[in-house]
Amino acid sequence: MEIDSPASHEKASLFSRVWWWFEALPKRLTAKVIETASNTKRLAQDDTRRVTHSIKVGLALSLVSLFYYYQPLYDNFGVSAMWAVMTVVVVFEFSVGATLGKGLNRALATLLAGALGLGAHHLANLFGHKGEPILLGLFVFIQAATSTFVRFFPKIKARYDYGLLIFILTFSLISVSGFRDAEILELAHKRLSTILIGGSSCVIISILVRPVWAGEDLHNVIALNMEKLANFLEHPSVIENGDSNDDKSFLQGYKSVLNSKSNEESLANFARWEPCHGQFHFRHPWKQYLTIGNRTRECAYRIDALSGHLNSDIQAKPEICSKIQEACTTMSLESGKCLRELACGVRAMTHPSSAKPQISKAKIAAKKLKLFLKSSLWEQDADLLAVIPSVTVASLLIDIVNCTEKITDSVLELASLAHFESVDPTVSPEKSQVGQGESDKPLTEIACPQVVIILDGSENENPPGPLTNRHIEM
Amino acid sequence: MEIDSPASHEKASLFSRVWWWFEALPKRLTAKVIETASNTKRLAQDDTRRVTHSIKVGLALSLVSLFYYYQPLYDNFGVSAMWAVMTVVVVFEFSVGATLGKGLNRALATLLAGALGLGAHHLANLFGHKGEPILLGLFVFIQAATSTFVRFFPKIKARYDYGLLIFILTFSLISVSGFRDAEILELAHKRLSTILIGGSSCVIISILVRPVWAGEDLHNVIALNMEKLANFLEHPSVIENGDSNDDKSFLQGYKSVLNSKSNEESLANFARWEPCHGQFHFRHPWKQYLTIGNRTRECAYRIDALSGHLNSDIQAKPEICSKIQEACTTMSLESGKCLRELACGVRAMTHPSSAKPQISKAKIAAKKLKLFLKSSLWEQDADLLAVIPSVTVASLLIDIVNCTEKITDSVLELASLAHFESVDPTVSPEKSQVGQGESDKPLTEIACPQVVIILDGSENENPPGPLTNRHIEM
Repeated sequence: MEIDSPASHEKASLFSRVWWWFEALPKRLTAKVIETASNTKRLAQDDTRRVTHSIKVGLALSLVSLFYYYQPLYDNFGVSAMWAVMTVVVVFEFSVGATLGKGLNRALATLLAGALGLGAHHLANLFGHKGEPILLGLFVFIQAATSTFVRFFPKIKARYDYGLLIFILTFSLISVSGFRDAEILELAHKRLSTILIGGSSCVIISILVRPVWAGEDLHNVIALNMEKLANFLEHPSVIENGDSNDDKSFLQGYKSVLNSKSNEESLANFARWEPCHGQFHFRHPWKQYLTIGNRTRECAYRIDALSGHLNSDIQAKPEICSKIQEACTTMSLESGKCLRELACGVRAMTHPSSAKPQISKAKIAAKKLKLFLKSSLWEQDADLLAVIPSVTVASLLIDIVNCTEKITDSVLELASLAHFESVDPTVSPEKSQVGQGESDKPLTEIACPQVVIILDGSENENPPGPLTNRHIEM
Repeated sequence: MEIDSPASHEKASLFSRVWWWFEALPKRLTAKVIETASNTKRLAQDDTRRVTHSIKVGLALSLVSLFYYYQPLYDNFGVSAMWAVMTVVVVFEFSVGATLGKGLNRALATLLAGALGLGAHHLANLFGHKGEPILLGLFVFIQAATSTFVRFFPKIKARYDYGLLIFILTFSLISVSGFRDAEILELAHKRLSTILIGGSSCVIISILVRPVWAGEDLHNVIALNMEKLANFLEHPSVIENGDSNDDKSFLQGYKSVLNSKSNEESLANFARWEPCHGQFHFRHPWKQYLTIGNRTRECAYRIDALSGHLNSDIQAKPEICSKIQEACTTMSLESGKCLRELACGVRAMTHPSSAKPQISKAKIAAKKLKLFLKSSLWEQDADLLAVIPSVTVASLLIDIVNCTEKITDSVLELASLAHFESVDPTVSPEKSQVGQGESDKPLTEIACPQVVIILDGSENENPPGPLTNRHIEM
């Protein structure tokens, strides 16, 4: 029998570990490559505009670098052509609004800061060779500190943040370079014109080649969020089924609405820069979309609270549940229908005239429920605990109906502000949705008007009947 | 009687309107100036670090512009000193983490893209005078398109977005300039060294002069958000009082928690770049803060639903309310206390050992409530409608207790991950809060353990008694 020393043991194990690491390396590398490839594919398939955008940036950059290759152009601008390349890289954003906003910010800030920098340079010149650097340093300090502070104002941050950055940059460059460069005016002129060339080629390409409009995105996001809430309200029966993961994630869709605020706000900021396009004119009421978004989120908070109750394991008594069930189903379904109606109206830019009757139906159901609860006398042996789940769900659903009414009001306000078309209410709303590519799911999957909320009153020990396979436990 | 023609009428009214406009102009200008001044003052007072930051940027910029003024430095770098100025303007961010992240991104991307750009330049050189521009254009196109697409990956966007931007920029500049400039190596070298100088001066100033640490901010924001929820849960009695606007806004504090996700995520991304500082070591578990933040938001959604019920005008019957009142008060108060305890623990980086007993108390109250509701038989004449409000509130409070328990678990996990100190639980938690300047309100205003939730059972037509002046209608 051979006894190994601990050191040789350790050495062997270290060696074998290194060996294993190297042996497994190709496998792991392959797995990593496959994973990255599939991620890339998904990213591209989720939104093909990403691929287009990448190609557009490459195109703009190649175009602008013509300045270097083509002799007559190079003779004119020389090394300053560099600014055009920089502008393209920095300014070209995903949506037209963001590109336009950045481009305008950059051009105007360069113009203004260039002029002020020239002024500062001339002023400092008056103070002789010794005073000039001190004065220029002071100017740069004051200007940079003030502009940096101004960037903290929320309204300015939202729209002019990049402009202020470029203002600080250009002012410092022009005034400081001026101390050395005699041809400061030419520098300012070249910088401005190359920036204009770079910026305008960005804007032109982003508008002409498959444009991505931030306004359209905002418009679609608002409609999509309402649809997500509608999906939840119209499909609650799926929760307990659990057969298909796809359906479950479909119900979780409302979760993304909870944190949509910052995205919507930046889209609205970009949209304000955009010229008229498609069905949107220049001063489209983008602010109203934010109001709708806020109210949609409020409704989503309630739905989140509701979803917590649907998933909890407390169970209600069947007698009470059956009484409340019908009203709950009506409220949920009619609110969902109303939201879908509103979403369709927003998408198609038509007056959602049938939303009002639907929300009225939901409100009537809520009223009926209250009345019914008031009139129905309580049985002697019932305990309060058994009522809690169903009563909570009913109460949250009443909240949701109220939220939906608020959303309806703000969508109707948008419809009048943006002069949405009035359509014949007898035309089915589905028709108006044809051709809208944004909807996550095909229509056949979304429309499902025969869902019934079943409040499960059976105790755990009772085997569920064939119908209770698909239900919510409340 | 004189009859004016409509034209002269119009003229007169136009004239008077213009006159009024000019007359009111100084007044409006003064008002505007006063408003802006007060806004500026508030902005500065809300967070004095904004003023410091502005001064720091001015300082860094003045320092870097020494390159132009000081002859020996200028001889070395020449016009390339411009890159140092640009780097300072672009890289200097509010927090150390953001500055470091941007600086490192910029430096590494410049290094890598410079090397690749040189390689592309040499490769293209092999193809002669005619092939070179075509090949270079192709390289620029492929590189720009690929990098732009890579920027869409969420993880890369969060940490390396700026690096990729600079990568595209530098690669294009170096490879394209190389077509003209024989001294391409010197260009790359100068660009890199000036960027390093600019970036390091930013980092040094941002660390040495009153540093703003993103990690510390995240740490405080997480604690503050828990405190905001605690404020609500401990003070519900103020809602109906309405005497002081200050207190009302104090209760609305939780609203800002609802949309805190993006802020927390960017702070966590910045914090990962930061070196060890204060009580935080380099690999502090910043991710755990995001978990706590997510759970705090979940709790805030429930509180939002609850607050809707507190403000609604449905009223409950006094008999039922009085029964549930005590349990609700205990649940709300103990959850609030627990959250405050957790916040204090996070702030002081001590183990929140007394949070567990408090959440247990809240859970016992919830259990008692359920038991009580089960055992208490219902009166014959009671209607269900009267129970709905109080039962809903009770149910949402049970939800909130559950959420608080989840928050407690994640804070305890943080405490063990980050090795929080264990303290003697007999020491009052208030002591550990002394010296923390982040808390919005002085402690005397926050601590208020004798609040009782009063479920108002009086109908509107009954005049409220002296005690019901301060209550919640449920």
